[in-house]
Amino acid sequence: MLLERYLHQQIPLSAAMGTRVRTATPERVQLAAPLIPNVNHNDTVFGGSAAALATLSAWALLHLRIERAGLHARLVIQRSSMEYERPIPGDFDAVCRFADELAWERFRATLVRRGRARLTLTACLVHDARRMAAFEGDFVALHSADMELQRT
Amino acid sequence: MLLERYLHQQIPLSAAMGTRVRTATPERVQLAAPLIPNVNHNDTVFGGSAAALATLSAWALLHLRIERAGLHARLVIQRSSMEYERPIPGDFDAVCRFADELAWERFRATLVRRGRARLTLTACLVHDARRMAAFEGDFVALHSADMELQRT
Repeated sequence: MLLERYLHQQIPLSAAMGTRVRTATPERVQLAAPLIPNVNHNDTVFGGSAAALATLSAWALLHLRIERAGLHARLVIQRSSMEYERPIPGDFDAVCRFADELAWERFRATLVRRGRARLTLTACLVHDARRMAAFEGDFVALHSADMELQRT
Repeated sequence: MLLERYLHQQIPLSAAMGTRVRTATPERVQLAAPLIPNVNHNDTVFGGSAAALATLSAWALLHLRIERAGLHARLVIQRSSMEYERPIPGDFDAVCRFADELAWERFRATLVRRGRARLTLTACLVHDARRMAAFEGDFVALHSADMELQRT
């Protein structure tokens, strides 16, 4: 899958984590990771791995939306939080959903007008059909320099 | 170093990230990681790697304190947040300091009395002697089952 190859090539930690892409649409990104490369001393998922997979899912969804809109922007994360609701004892998924088209349109218009826009995305971590953790992240998109030149 | 071997063995992602232990005392844990295995599509540090190294530094400090106090407890992370202040363009360190001995003593006493206690730790990410990101995490320590039996 295109997104999986992109992640593994551009973000080598995603390959070390064994990340696979289950779903990749502008409305829903679902990534999967096995326990073994992400295990901790309690035989559950290391918190850092959980945070990383959630971050990737949200980043990927925004990346797909920006690409579909024909925009060229650099995406950075500005702030994030994780609630670790229960230990994850096996393979796990990160699911990021986004369907707020009004918020998206505001984001897109601000990015085009000001060259910079921010969007908050949420994701959850799932194991065995149960929610195990919640992620929230603020992402900032910045028009790349060549786009700035094209606009002037 | 003992802690480095423990991290690499118990949390394989720490090895994949190239984590090294620079300092490991109950007052200060400093971990280092190279850019290459932690890079992202912008040629800066992937946010998930930054969060993971910060989490490891705080977890390790609490682990060392619990060990020094002769306690046997399982440590889990309950909540965390990251402020990504600026992109990290190279090798980076996570530094967790803790010198609040009153808070530690409250934590220790609660753990012994109730079998469960919570402590908030902060860490920062440093590149080229400059602070690049801030981490805060709430950790919960749970007396292990055999300790519970010993107490009854």
